[in-house]
Amino acid sequence: MVRITYEEMQEVLKKLFLKHHFTDQKAALLAKIHSESTLAGVNSHGINRVPPFIKYVKNGWVDIQAEATQAETIGNIERWDGKFGSGVLNAVKCTERAVELAKNHGMGLVALRNTNHWMRGGTYGKMAADKGCIAIFFTNTISNMPPWGAKENRIGNNPLIVAIPREEGPILLDMAISQFSFGKMYGYKLKDEQLPFIGGWDKADNLTKDPKKIMASKRALPIGYWKGSALSMILDMLATLLSAGNSTYRISQKEYETGISQIFLCINPKVFNDHTLHENLLNEIILYTRDAATMHPEDNIYYPGEQSSKKEIANKKDGMLVDEKIWQKIETLLLGIDF
Amino acid sequence: MVRITYEEMQEVLKKLFLKHHFTDQKAALLAKIHSESTLAGVNSHGINRVPPFIKYVKNGWVDIQAEATQAETIGNIERWDGKFGSGVLNAVKCTERAVELAKNHGMGLVALRNTNHWMRGGTYGKMAADKGCIAIFFTNTISNMPPWGAKENRIGNNPLIVAIPREEGPILLDMAISQFSFGKMYGYKLKDEQLPFIGGWDKADNLTKDPKKIMASKRALPIGYWKGSALSMILDMLATLLSAGNSTYRISQKEYETGISQIFLCINPKVFNDHTLHENLLNEIILYTRDAATMHPEDNIYYPGEQSSKKEIANKKDGMLVDEKIWQKIETLLLGIDF
Repeated sequence: MVRITYEEMQEVLKKLFLKHHFTDQKAALLAKIHSESTLAGVNSHGINRVPPFIKYVKNGWVDIQAEATQAETIGNIERWDGKFGSGVLNAVKCTERAVELAKNHGMGLVALRNTNHWMRGGTYGKMAADKGCIAIFFTNTISNMPPWGAKENRIGNNPLIVAIPREEGPILLDMAISQFSFGKMYGYKLKDEQLPFIGGWDKADNLTKDPKKIMASKRALPIGYWKGSALSMILDMLATLLSAGNSTYRISQKEYETGISQIFLCINPKVFNDHTLHENLLNEIILYTRDAATMHPEDNIYYPGEQSSKKEIANKKDGMLVDEKIWQKIETLLLGIDF
Repeated sequence: MVRITYEEMQEVLKKLFLKHHFTDQKAALLAKIHSESTLAGVNSHGINRVPPFIKYVKNGWVDIQAEATQAETIGNIERWDGKFGSGVLNAVKCTERAVELAKNHGMGLVALRNTNHWMRGGTYGKMAADKGCIAIFFTNTISNMPPWGAKENRIGNNPLIVAIPREEGPILLDMAISQFSFGKMYGYKLKDEQLPFIGGWDKADNLTKDPKKIMASKRALPIGYWKGSALSMILDMLATLLSAGNSTYRISQKEYETGISQIFLCINPKVFNDHTLHENLLNEIILYTRDAATMHPEDNIYYPGEQSSKKEIANKKDGMLVDEKIWQKIETLLLGIDF
């Protein structure tokens, strides 16, 4: 691992995106978003995603010229078309629009179709919360889990994000519907360790903690077994119907994931003008939850997003730990040597 | 088990509620809702809940005179106060109001405070979907699970309902955030069986499939371990903040569950006028998911709510299977013999 400062990462990534013909403004925004996710400790959806993103750009799978546009609108509900542009840039635009709708109407929903991977979904939840809005966001994906009872993948891990503004920094839930991401499993595999809990099936249909076997079968487990399977299906249905976009079914007809559908629902809690009550109610919940005795004395109880906020502070001070091979790849890409 | 027809159950329950001084209209509605949940095969939240509900009424924990009223409103967001009335009657009123707001604005949210148990949450999701709206509803509860890492209960199982209208009948997700309800565990315990998956902790902090041990420790497992724990917290936060109502913390200060907070968010998909597209997109998702090979040849893959719709049809034809002791208790209550 190498330590890279937040500033250095932004600078290097901006150069890389400029080299791939993004405008100055877009290159800076992309660099900021990838660096922020890494700052929060989510390398898997930050810096580690840069090389595959560049591959998408080079292959023309992400249209760098595309600008998301409003397709249909009725009051506080809007459909947008992402036109196969950068998932990050589209998500930023739709987050900003949903916040604006919520500020005007109390609540606003943007349903985005034909977009690409938004990298770390929590980025946009935090963005909305920092602007004073509650955010409920989700995306569908290419099929990467079997529905309950099946041995073939037909549902996505469809990350769900919920963010709530708070003075000390937002409450932020950012979870895929799979118990473990393939990224996490890969980490355990590298260390030759078992997963702490069952995470998928082996090729013989047995539930297992062995990351190698799950990666071989490609069959990850939904959270809560049949419950996560149903939740994944219904999130896909909502994203597809509201955006009139592609479902996991249609996305999975291509060899690579593109043209996905996303929901950005914002609520402005200020509609009720009770800032002190808002803070007090949140703090009561947090204090009560934390107050429980832990199973192991060294354990702590966290609110959603607490650990990533702490990581941000530490990483801003000490620099971010980045996989050496990933950083080398970024530098190689910057030099223009193809991979 | 005894078989009771849908009509007979409604008739008996209406008499029982009339006897407990509900108005004719309210008694009929309560009877209908409890019978419908039983019709869908959800006895645990239908007929089986009638005796405890009568206990709440007798103890004055449910105010039978109360009428939920609108407390604050801004555009398509409203706060309602349930005034400790029947959770079922309050939820019906707020569902109808959220549907009305969605019909007028495209989207509407009702946040209800000071209410009581709504029995089967899916009832209201189905009600909204039958009126053409997408529903995203949830409730908080008294604390009944430990947050991740803790050995004391501090979070609720906070059921989450999502319903989507469809010609053939709605898609309906109705799930508590616990892996198994205590009702389900009790069923396994009676049969002296282990749960099919880990469902909670024993008193020595070990995860276990033994329903007896989990019922003794009272520590149920959230779906997806740390993920469900975080999801439960954030649903409680949303319900509490938006309704300015009681959180799981405050609800848990009483010895019985009352004064809970609920969210009724409706979206009217008709805002985009694409009925055929709506049906086609849904059917594509369902067909693709069902098309997967199953692990066991006898297994089927279902969409959320499919099994309970099938049960409704069968139960309407054959009558509903009801636990004999429960039915006897209902008859005893009707005779006015105290328990």
